[in-house]
Amino acid sequence: MTKKIAVLGASGYTGAELVRLIATHPSFEIAALTADRKAGQTMGEVFPHLRHLDLPVLTKIDEVDFSAVDLVFCALPHKTSQAVISALPRDVKIVDLSADFRLRDPAAYKTWYGNDHAALDLQEEAVYGLTEFYRDEIRGARLVAGTGCNAATGQFGLVPLIRAGVIDLDNIIIDLQAGVSGAGRSLKENLLHAELSEGTHPYAAGGTHRHLGEFDQEFAKWAGRPVTVQFTPHLMPANRGILATIYVHGEAQAIHDAFAAAYAEEPFLVLLPMGEVASTRSVRGSNFVHVGVTPDRIPGRAIVTVSLDNLTKGSSGQALQNANLMLGEAETAGLMLAPVFP
Amino acid sequence: MTKKIAVLGASGYTGAELVRLIATHPSFEIAALTADRKAGQTMGEVFPHLRHLDLPVLTKIDEVDFSAVDLVFCALPHKTSQAVISALPRDVKIVDLSADFRLRDPAAYKTWYGNDHAALDLQEEAVYGLTEFYRDEIRGARLVAGTGCNAATGQFGLVPLIRAGVIDLDNIIIDLQAGVSGAGRSLKENLLHAELSEGTHPYAAGGTHRHLGEFDQEFAKWAGRPVTVQFTPHLMPANRGILATIYVHGEAQAIHDAFAAAYAEEPFLVLLPMGEVASTRSVRGSNFVHVGVTPDRIPGRAIVTVSLDNLTKGSSGQALQNANLMLGEAETAGLMLAPVFP
Amino acid sequence: MTKKIAVLGASGYTGAELVRLIATHPSFEIAALTADRKAGQTMGEVFPHLRHLDLPVLTKIDEVDFSAVDLVFCALPHKTSQAVISALPRDVKIVDLSADFRLRDPAAYKTWYGNDHAALDLQEEAVYGLTEFYRDEIRGARLVAGTGCNAATGQFGLVPLIRAGVIDLDNIIIDLQAGVSGAGRSLKENLLHAELSEGTHPYAAGGTHRHLGEFDQEFAKWAGRPVTVQFTPHLMPANRGILATIYVHGEAQAIHDAFAAAYAEEPFLVLLPMGEVASTRSVRGSNFVHVGVTPDRIPGRAIVTVSLDNLTKGSSGQALQNANLMLGEAETAGLMLAPVFP
Amino acid sequence: MTKKIAVLGASGYTGAELVRLIATHPSFEIAALTADRKAGQTMGEVFPHLRHLDLPVLTKIDEVDFSAVDLVFCALPHKTSQAVISALPRDVKIVDLSADFRLRDPAAYKTWYGNDHAALDLQEEAVYGLTEFYRDEIRGARLVAGTGCNAATGQFGLVPLIRAGVIDLDNIIIDLQAGVSGAGRSLKENLLHAELSEGTHPYAAGGTHRHLGEFDQEFAKWAGRPVTVQFTPHLMPANRGILATIYVHGEAQAIHDAFAAAYAEEPFLVLLPMGEVASTRSVRGSNFVHVGVTPDRIPGRAIVTVSLDNLTKGSSGQALQNANLMLGEAETAGLMLAPVFP
Repeated sequence: MTKKIAVLGASGYTGAELVRLIATHPSFEIAALTADRKAGQTMGEVFPHLRHLDLPVLTKIDEVDFSAVDLVFCALPHKTSQAVISALPRDVKIVDLSADFRLRDPAAYKTWYGNDHAALDLQEEAVYGLTEFYRDEIRGARLVAGTGCNAATGQFGLVPLIRAGVIDLDNIIIDLQAGVSGAGRSLKENLLHAELSEGTHPYAAGGTHRHLGEFDQEFAKWAGRPVTVQFTPHLMPANRGILATIYVHGEAQAIHDAFAAAYAEEPFLVLLPMGEVASTRSVRGSNFVHVGVTPDRIPGRAIVTVSLDNLTKGSSGQALQNANLMLGEAETAGLMLAPVFP
Repeated sequence: MTKKIAVLGASGYTGAELVRLIATHPSFEIAALTADRKAGQTMGEVFPHLRHLDLPVLTKIDEVDFSAVDLVFCALPHKTSQAVISALPRDVKIVDLSADFRLRDPAAYKTWYGNDHAALDLQEEAVYGLTEFYRDEIRGARLVAGTGCNAATGQFGLVPLIRAGVIDLDNIIIDLQAGVSGAGRSLKENLLHAELSEGTHPYAAGGTHRHLGEFDQEFAKWAGRPVTVQFTPHLMPANRGILATIYVHGEAQAIHDAFAAAYAEEPFLVLLPMGEVASTRSVRGSNFVHVGVTPDRIPGRAIVTVSLDNLTKGSSGQALQNANLMLGEAETAGLMLAPVFP
Repeated sequence: MTKKIAVLGASGYTGAELVRLIATHPSFEIAALTADRKAGQTMGEVFPHLRHLDLPVLTKIDEVDFSAVDLVFCALPHKTSQAVISALPRDVKIVDLSADFRLRDPAAYKTWYGNDHAALDLQEEAVYGLTEFYRDEIRGARLVAGTGCNAATGQFGLVPLIRAGVIDLDNIIIDLQAGVSGAGRSLKENLLHAELSEGTHPYAAGGTHRHLGEFDQEFAKWAGRPVTVQFTPHLMPANRGILATIYVHGEAQAIHDAFAAAYAEEPFLVLLPMGEVASTRSVRGSNFVHVGVTPDRIPGRAIVTVSLDNLTKGSSGQALQNANLMLGEAETAGLMLAPVFP
Repeated sequence: MTKKIAVLGASGYTGAELVRLIATHPSFEIAALTADRKAGQTMGEVFPHLRHLDLPVLTKIDEVDFSAVDLVFCALPHKTSQAVISALPRDVKIVDLSADFRLRDPAAYKTWYGNDHAALDLQEEAVYGLTEFYRDEIRGARLVAGTGCNAATGQFGLVPLIRAGVIDLDNIIIDLQAGVSGAGRSLKENLLHAELSEGTHPYAAGGTHRHLGEFDQEFAKWAGRPVTVQFTPHLMPANRGILATIYVHGEAQAIHDAFAAAYAEEPFLVLLPMGEVASTRSVRGSNFVHVGVTPDRIPGRAIVTVSLDNLTKGSSGQALQNANLMLGEAETAGLMLAPVFP
């Protein structure tokens, strides 16, 4: 049976990516698209690559009839999301793509985002949306909090190792390169083509990136003790893709085995043969994740590489995967699109 | 009922693109993949982005059991294709992606490709594969000749105008920018990243590009008289996509009307509102074609812009569209994937 | 003797390019840099690539002591330039990089820029700054109007042909691809990396681009009659560089000869051997211009290709070349930097 | 007085970069250019961006009259360099850009490069060419061994810290992103634009990259004990530039102070204010190096970032800097070109 879907904040990249994926989903249908500042425009005007689709015109949120909607994807900025989601009817399911419901501890939320949380009751019921590690909770959830794209990448490279106890928890470095679409369709000088192309640089170096809030929360949960990682994201001159190069203390074979055990049945996780490395090009436009393990020349150290597409598995694909579970669909429905290369 | 598909020459970009598209096709299944120099390797080794798929190992062509194959995609270099296709059993259907069967006149073939044609009997039965203009012939064909990617782009921007008689046939200029994947996965100095990125240049300027053979053949056919266009392709620093900017003498409104009439029922052809221009980004990774019309400031002149993805609608998507027709499937099966942007 | 230079509007790309070039100029010294919104910052903060230089802090324009300045480069937006330049002391020389003084006819200015010209007296004394065609006038000028970067490219490919009478004036098409830095460091959605990279599209198609005002003025002047060209610029995914592919009716050899005669003594104009095409990569970061001629397969038609770097020969390098003349320096001083490839 | 220069191996990127830099050098003149496979061609044919220069035609090495040459830049592949340099007259000075004379220990050379060294006498007299740390030895040397480009980047970020004793020698990780021109103008599938653009991946992960031979040699020398670092290079989609993100255990302020002391008088080393990070875009096309220090959120840990242009300071600019010293010129002659941005 067809499920009716609304996308709030459809004029951003994650909104467009949701529409792209739902376009070939076997049982989801888009019932409403909102974009406050672009209300009245068609999606094809805002995103010409979607011109071939027959889609509802963009509206304001308060024009949506939520009684005819089964599930809402909320692709709004953090803080806005709290307010909007608080006002939604209780019988609609929600996948939120913002940062608003990722951190279970309100103090951590305030530390990383600077403001008090305004919807603590919703925060309590929200389930952290990394499907592979929260599948059962997500299946029964009303509100799922999509993860940060960098946070997802790091967790795919570390959670199975922490759970299996095969790495030293006090020596973890996540060095990461992120494509520019992760920063959204926002007018910032540092996102201009002339500023970004043909080069790279780190940002939020030294442990100041907000996704550390998610790392701290999740790694502590799985480890049963605090885990403080180092994390340096870089902005690379590519539109899509995240590559994490993770330095750990541990035996490469035990690490590879831990991944093999954890990901054996996962439809989207691809463990590469020992010694091979992940590449962002190999997952572009898809919901797949590549994970590689390489032993270092220093005995007892290894490098884990993880790649995913920030707009797909890092946000909108992940969101759709969760929505599938929440609505009783096959988890992979609409998501088996192969990566686009070259 | 599942149809069994073989891809000959699967280690090139068009071969990989066929596999990508067939991966989510509802009724096609890959029975054999060949790549002479990479026989014995898995597709995942040659193209890591396809690692998640369960595919046959690459073999040599003579190891393929064609009795278990319904249709062959032949993605081999021109000249090689003639020999290989001549040796295939008569009851297998074939979509050829090379240039070997595009030109009906053997003299034209020799002019543009330099060698005599070695399979003239096959040439006679081959149908030119631009689906939108040869749909009925393709449906009944055993052998379909996929078009050149630039040739397809130019024809989408001109054939309806020639048929409708709304442009001057002696003043047609096709200026075109092509992404680098059109040149294939070949080791040429001018295809290196360091040579190509961050710049552009024309190539085969002055009327020497081989796809002119197709333009001359097709435009003459539809016009009922010779039509000699000017054509300058450029190599742009992007992997996928072709943009044709076509200068014609004619009334913009009549031109727009001619397109509207020709493409009204076409599932993959998107006519933009008058004055809007096509962009390669809006069709990337998809089988869609965007067509725009802009009046020039000089009365009686107009600019037609056409964009498509050279690997999809320009070759492998077009090939799959034709295969759908030849095997009695829905024409759009497996091809409604929305473009990937950004 | 050292000449003191002020750069007004130093926080944009053309301002930064001026500083880059002056950094190794043998006799120019930067006395003042202004940037209204960034006054108080150092140039190294605004442009980290200039950190190694010992430069004055950015100020507001009214803080500059123009009595200690020999020449002002005015790299401000059009309209602003008129007001600022009107207020400068009469004994300071000025090279303006905006569009404000390019069009000698106030009506043409209003047509293309939408507002009345507010400094008609200055307009009258301004010399059009395409050095190769106005060298003598520039040498004696107080105010020189730098040309549009696209306008410069087109003129290098057409003025010698118009003067020599070797092409048909009623069949000229300038198809052009421009790097994104030409649009400046401005916060526009269509200039974001995620929007622009990996693709191309035309803009201002159909004869609406403002640089047509310059084409119309200059071509008419050299032809002694109106010349109305077609002009389609495209935005290509590269930071620097313009390639013009110009379609003309005329004999290729006569065209090549006309260029050879016109550019024989020009230090920055490189005429390629017959049949070779210009490439933006071959002039990147330099003041050089490449010009190529290719005969078309249609007798009596030819393709002219021209490449230059929009920030150097297209604006700041051209400006410096003019300043050299105005201040009695060698015309090539500081400008012989070889292109940066790859 | 003009010095006569020969460039052996002028058809590669480092050769072209040498010619670019020498083009505006005040006292060097190119007397000979060699390229075995392209002998007889002009440099402008091989590298159109150098067309404006009046250069000797490419020849074979044995056609060069070395008696008229003051200094030879040898930009040949490793192993070839040994043979060629052994055959040069004793009174010509040599800057070698290959890996052949970088490693003082023949066993280390064999370990990293796989073959026995065939010119051990020359190896003994060769001086390691990182100017900032070997200035005096280089001044008096006959043969200087240019460093690896990644090796140079890592050393600029670590040598002052090792000498000052401000970091833990057993916890050093060099994570590095390199532009593709570092791999040279070689026909390898993985260097094609379609393979490389729009993504990133590590290579030679786990401690297998040859530049580790240089790290091991140099860090041990300055530390007075073995130092074994971890090193993961990545190939980023940009033509020029290397960014090293280096993870160390040490106090950020002490680290910043050590750099400040070491680089205070260095003309090409730019130490950024505490907390700022290096970017490859800020040094592109120049001989400058940017170094930044950021404290980590984990007390006692810091991140050092270093950027340089692999073709300039990483190879040809460094070579020219050394040649200046060897020939008694100002060290900065011809090298003060400001970076090209954007």
